[in-house]
This record gives sequence, C-alpha cells and structure tokens, in this order.
Amino acid sequence: MRLATIRTATGHRAVRLDGDSAVETGEADVRALLERPDWAEHAANADGPVHDAAGLDHAPLIPSPEKIICVGLNYRDHVQEMGNELPEYPTLFAKFAPSLIGARDEIELPPQSERVDYEAELTVVIGRSVRHADAEAARAAIAGYTVLNDVSMRDYQRRTKQFLQGKTWEHSTPLGPALVTADELPADPADGGALRISSELSGEIMQDSTTDQLVFGVVDLVVYLSTILTLNPGDVIATGTPGGVGDARTPPRYLTDGSEIVTSVEGVGECRNVARAVP
Amino acid sequence: MRLATIRTATGHRAVRLDGDSAVETGEADVRALLERPDWAEHAANADGPVHDAAGLDHAPLIPSPEKIICVGLNYRDHVQEMGNELPEYPTLFAKFAPSLIGARDEIELPPQSERVDYEAELTVVIGRSVRHADAEAARAAIAGYTVLNDVSMRDYQRRTKQFLQGKTWEHSTPLGPALVTADELPADPADGGALRISSELSGEIMQDSTTDQLVFGVVDLVVYLSTILTLNPGDVIATGTPGGVGDARTPPRYLTDGSEIVTSVEGVGECRNVARAVP
Repeated sequence: MRLATIRTATGHRAVRLDGDSAVETGEADVRALLERPDWAEHAANADGPVHDAAGLDHAPLIPSPEKIICVGLNYRDHVQEMGNELPEYPTLFAKFAPSLIGARDEIELPPQSERVDYEAELTVVIGRSVRHADAEAARAAIAGYTVLNDVSMRDYQRRTKQFLQGKTWEHSTPLGPALVTADELPADPADGGALRISSELSGEIMQDSTTDQLVFGVVDLVVYLSTILTLNPGDVIATGTPGGVGDARTPPRYLTDGSEIVTSVEGVGECRNVARAVP
Repeated sequence: MRLATIRTATGHRAVRLDGDSAVETGEADVRALLERPDWAEHAANADGPVHDAAGLDHAPLIPSPEKIICVGLNYRDHVQEMGNELPEYPTLFAKFAPSLIGARDEIELPPQSERVDYEAELTVVIGRSVRHADAEAARAAIAGYTVLNDVSMRDYQRRTKQFLQGKTWEHSTPLGPALVTADELPADPADGGALRISSELSGEIMQDSTTDQLVFGVVDLVVYLSTILTLNPGDVIATGTPGGVGDARTPPRYLTDGSEIVTSVEGVGECRNVARAVP
C-alpha cells in the first residue's frame, strides 16, 4: 500500500495511491491516519473522493510529526568519506516540523548559507506507539518507508559541535512522496534488504549506494530509540545518508538557485525538488 | 500575569494564577491559549471555573510544544567549568515532547543511565509567530518566562558527539510551573536583567548564578533562531545552565532514587521534583 498527504483547495487530505488515482481515506493527513489503530485496514478499504494521481500536490508526507529523528554517520561508505571510524552507537539529532516540504516543492536557499547540501535517506515512519521494543515489536511498529532529503546548511551545521542549526532551516527538507509498506518493496529494510539509494544533482549522479550498507538497520534504530522514549504514530526516523554528499567532494558541490536535486530509494519513491534562492 | 496548564479529572486546562486561586481560561493548555492572537487580554479577563491554587496538579507548562530548543554552553561560569572558550555562536539542540513532566512530577531514572544530571534554566515561551525578527520583534514575540530542568543522561549524551540522546529521555524534564510575564519580574531578562538562578539537590545548593551571566541573551536567541525558522506560539527555548552541574563536580553528583532537585529562577518560580528509579 502507498499512502500520501496531498494539498487540496480545502486543506490537506490523506490518500491511498492506486496506480493512476488517489483515494481519500477521510483523515487530514498521514499522521492522523496512522493514529487510528486500524489504519492499515481502514486505508485499504477507504473509498472517499478520488483524485487523478498525475495532478497531485504533495504536502510533506507527515506535515507535523511529533518527532523527526535523524541518524548521522550510518552508511559504511559515508562514514569512511567523512574520515570517521564505524560507530559503536548511532549518532542522533533532530529537525523541527517547519523544515519540512513536499516531495515536489522548492527547497528554500537562504541568503545566510553558502553551503547547502543534499543527503538522500531511507526513512522509517512509525505506525504504532512503542517503548522498550524488542526486535519483533520494533518491526511491528514500522508502518512503512519514505524518502527524506536531509538538506543541510553545512556552514551553520559546523558553527558549533551540535548539528541542529544546520539541519532545521525553514522549508528545506523534502519528505515523501509516499509511505510505502514493506510488502510493496523488492527487499525489506527490516531484514537488512538492499534497496538502491541515490541522489542526482541537475542530472548528475552524486550518491549511489544500497541500504544494506546501513551500520544500524531500521529495526536496530527503533529498538535503540524506544529505549529512550516512546515512539508514536507519524514519527519520522531518517536513517542516514551514503557517501557522495556535496560538501565532501573536491571541489565541493552545493545546491544553487535552480538546481534540481532528486533523491531516490528503490521501490519507495523519489523526492524531486528545485532549489530556489529566497530573500 | 501567571499562566499554567493543570491536570483535572476531565483533562488539561489552561489557568490564570491569581494568588490563592487558579481561573480557567477556556483553553486546554497554555499552547492553545498562546495560539490566540488576543491571548493576553483573553487570559486577563478569563472568569472560568476556579481551582484552589494549593491543590493544583501541574502538567508540563506546554505539554506538546512544536519545538523545544535548548542552548548549551551559555553561562560564562558554566562555559569555564566545562573547560571551554566563550562561544561565537549559540550551541543549539533539541528535546522532544515526551521528555516533559510537570513542575512537581517525578523524574524517571532509567536503569540504562548511571549519570543523570540536573541543569536549571531560564526558559523563554514564545507567544507570537515570528521569522527574521529584529530585536524589537523578538522582544514582542516573547510571551514570558518559565523554568526548565534540562535533565541530562550524561553517559548517553557523550556516546556520540550529538547531545540529543542524552537529553530527551521519557518523563525526565520538568517544565513550569507557570509562564510569568516580564512585568511580574524584579528584572526583565529581555533587558539583560539579573535574576538569581539556582538548583538545590536534596537540600544542598549546587548551582547559584544570575541571568546576566548569559552569553547570548533571550532577545539575541530569538533573533538568531528566527533567522533559521519560524518560531510559533508555545515554542520553548531553554537558555542554558550556569556552573555547578553534578557531572562537573569532584566527586560527581547525580540524581539517585529519592533525590529531590529544586530548580529556581527568581520571580519566575521553581520546579521541585523527586527522582525515582523506574524499571
């Protein structure tokens, strides 16, 4: 099943994507849908108003998550490109909801940053509240997967040792287009499956790896995080990015006005966003 | 004016505190109240059901903020105690809402951490959406002040370079008891005013400083943050802690089962919490 949050003339709607059409489920967005204990059955049976899939205006998949948790240094090849050892524990940081945009929206390039970078990430969406999960409970808490482009203002990220201020700029972070359940995928990330993950900057492949390169897999991450606090429906866990980010290149490559950045995970979908300078 | 969020038999309520009584404003909590453009007038004129102030059960002042933004290394004396230089930029990190507790609730001590520390913090509550604020707009966006005890699992905080996983444990972080507007205070933090800030662990003073020791003041912080993203009503900005934290002492001092930790800011109020081991 594929689920999305779309913008309509009268506000956001959660929809089920059925090939050429999108069927409203009755909830305002995918978080509200996932808060129903029967979300999977409810969404599968939904028969609300139908939209043409070709004309959808995608909102951020979860417009207002309680938590956006990002994992750093979690691909073997990216860890090596940044000159780091493989970690013993996951590196975790946050974004806030106003940073999110839809999968086709423009990425805002603020005049304050000259080093705006992309990071393609396989992203977990939580579908059930969970604390102190073992592997089985962690797997059951995963509603499905989506794509997040962890756009990063590298100059702000490096102003201090804490990444947050480089990671949470307004309207910078594409999330979507759809939540895709594991049964739709050629391999299940919860089994360590290898899905191709890539990014393409104005037509040039910049990142190209597979999700079996993850140091901490999706089940590991849900177990670890749920030790610390309760994960709730609609929570977003961006699992980290592979090698090839612009800031680590020689010469560096950044998003500039008019750049198109496409971040993709095989079977899950792609965010395709134009970067746009804003005052 | 003093505002709080209380628990009642039928759910949360925002109240105005009038000496011995608490008057309901009609909103479910202080965030919902602050989302009204007329919140100050509305709260001042509220005449809903009245509670005895002595028996209030305080919820976290803002139970579900869109953002909890914390500032690190922001008191001159604490920077020195941790062996750091005065910073050029504020160090920023996040907490998530499930970490919050009320001003009299128990702090959960998880079995996974042996180094649970306290940090008394003067905390800004935002009362108006603001982006790209200058100093005047920043000042106008501040609804008032409260107290946050930035309880920190130091072992988890230091597992990686990013603080988040040591800062956001479930039911660890007292916030409250009240939002206090600047006119109630002996000095206005927005003018760099000196309010005493302190913590007391089981009767012993551990931190004792004044808010004029802040490296980045409350107006500076709102200006800086609003460059990055929109601040919204109910957002919480914990401005950092002075010297004297338990982890920096010789020998170190941590919260243990039954410890009482009182964190206070002069005129703003105090959080008084017992730490309790949980399975």
